[in-house]
Amino acid sequence: MAVYTDVSDEELSAFLAGYDLGELLACKGIAEGVENSNFLLHTDAGFFILTLYEKRVDTRDLPFFLGLMEHLANRGITCPLPVHARDGKALGHLAGRPAVIVTFLDGLSIKHPSPQQCGMLGEAMAGLHLAASDFEIQRKNALAIDTWPDLFAPIAPEADSVAPGLAETIDTELGFLQANWPNDLPHGVIHADLFPDNVFFRSGHLSGLIDFYFACNDFLAYDLAISMNAWCFEPDRSFNVTAAMAMLNQYQAVRSLEQREISALPILARGAALRFLLTRLVDWLDVPEGALVKPKDPLEYARKLRFHQQVASAVEYGLSP
Amino acid sequence: MAVYTDVSDEELSAFLAGYDLGELLACKGIAEGVENSNFLLHTDAGFFILTLYEKRVDTRDLPFFLGLMEHLANRGITCPLPVHARDGKALGHLAGRPAVIVTFLDGLSIKHPSPQQCGMLGEAMAGLHLAASDFEIQRKNALAIDTWPDLFAPIAPEADSVAPGLAETIDTELGFLQANWPNDLPHGVIHADLFPDNVFFRSGHLSGLIDFYFACNDFLAYDLAISMNAWCFEPDRSFNVTAAMAMLNQYQAVRSLEQREISALPILARGAALRFLLTRLVDWLDVPEGALVKPKDPLEYARKLRFHQQVASAVEYGLSP
Repeated sequence: MAVYTDVSDEELSAFLAGYDLGELLACKGIAEGVENSNFLLHTDAGFFILTLYEKRVDTRDLPFFLGLMEHLANRGITCPLPVHARDGKALGHLAGRPAVIVTFLDGLSIKHPSPQQCGMLGEAMAGLHLAASDFEIQRKNALAIDTWPDLFAPIAPEADSVAPGLAETIDTELGFLQANWPNDLPHGVIHADLFPDNVFFRSGHLSGLIDFYFACNDFLAYDLAISMNAWCFEPDRSFNVTAAMAMLNQYQAVRSLEQREISALPILARGAALRFLLTRLVDWLDVPEGALVKPKDPLEYARKLRFHQQVASAVEYGLSP
Repeated sequence: MAVYTDVSDEELSAFLAGYDLGELLACKGIAEGVENSNFLLHTDAGFFILTLYEKRVDTRDLPFFLGLMEHLANRGITCPLPVHARDGKALGHLAGRPAVIVTFLDGLSIKHPSPQQCGMLGEAMAGLHLAASDFEIQRKNALAIDTWPDLFAPIAPEADSVAPGLAETIDTELGFLQANWPNDLPHGVIHADLFPDNVFFRSGHLSGLIDFYFACNDFLAYDLAISMNAWCFEPDRSFNVTAAMAMLNQYQAVRSLEQREISALPILARGAALRFLLTRLVDWLDVPEGALVKPKDPLEYARKLRFHQQVASAVEYGLSP
């Protein structure tokens, strides 16, 4: 949640003069997005979200993110659609920062998804993978396996302060994953952050996907591995195999997984668990004393990692042998 | 700016079932209000603001605040209107907190008000004072002069760490104000926080007033003293007498000030400056290391206090002798 940059209504009105959105009627900073400043705008043309990109976002990636949302929206995926200014550009500048206006998407995210909702996510994810298959810009996964050692090295000495033995666990897992990570799976554009917060439901149906700022090119099945971790564990920490089965089966109803993807699922799930364990650990150890934003618990992902380490094959995720 | 309480969409949907607002379509935490958690709601019936009252608000005051907004709205003052649930009540309960839904008010606040806008504020303030004159609930000013010594005492030892001599300045001023504060001015309901953030303009006209959570019964002219401090100093710290004159004259076009109110303006302005100096100083000294919210500069109000200490009569605020 964040509004890092203060924008005066005068600056904003001047910025909006470049768009065909009519008069600015209201603007509220909204507590959403960890990386950027977001505002809800009301203009004569309706409601919109204005995003100012803060320095953690590499501005060279913006054409990929914006182009992808537009590409997906044009193929019937419900996601925020970047609004073009009168000069034809979607990417503008406001308060010294790259700035974009996107359409406001109605929808509610679910805190505790049901197996049925996990199934709907699988279906929507496969639809996204297919719709993005002819998207022409590429973006390397900035949090891919080759980046994990560099994420870990600076925090390794502190890891055991969070949980005894954690540094050893991570170090061993890194070695295992580097030795065994697949290198020839079907790949394409993935969302890479399809957590429940980023998926909207309405009247019992999945109604939209948001927050494409981790999207990148990687193994398609890695997107499933990330979402199985994010969606299929119960609050009591148990793995809900019914939920995972629904996600995988409904994914396959739209795009069939190849046998090598199915075989790789347990290791991809370990990798996804380690990736979120590492980034959460970095944030956890980086928080200043007394800060208002509480970082997410890294140990949640250490537990998920342990679960996947015990998994012998995707049968344990509910797929038929 | 704040969202202190996390509300799940499931809890929220259950809460909304008690209202005639249709289905919940979207909910965004908004970065507004220092004391409470605020959310923008979109439902079938339109856009609304949901406020959850955090512990700094005394819940016994809520009937005053909500009743006042309703009273003013019924008398043509544009302000948020509390929405009643189907059981007739405006005050509900959500996530363990008192909760209220009010109408969403379009409008933009001005960072640097012009003298013309100061005039419009004067007119609107007088309108508010008259409209509230038959409001039946009373609320003591929780930040009135008799509370200032207790605000100051715990921070007095640290005040000089903010600016050398500040403790002495405050102590002397407290003594002067206690000895000279008027006790027989016209009184009634005042807003008590009419800063530019809380006043909306649209198409060159004042379009609404918000944030009534400091409203109380006090001297009517004290509201003017607060707003002169908040609106009539330029970014270069100079006092804009044209702006003050416009505010006072347009106030008087709706409600004439009595001679004793005019005579008291300089001391009320000193009191208002000290009140904001004190509360800002408390916040300044209370902020944890590394916190994300930057408190407002207390010394801005020490400078304003010094200005008013030099004022001999309201003539210097632009009123005719």
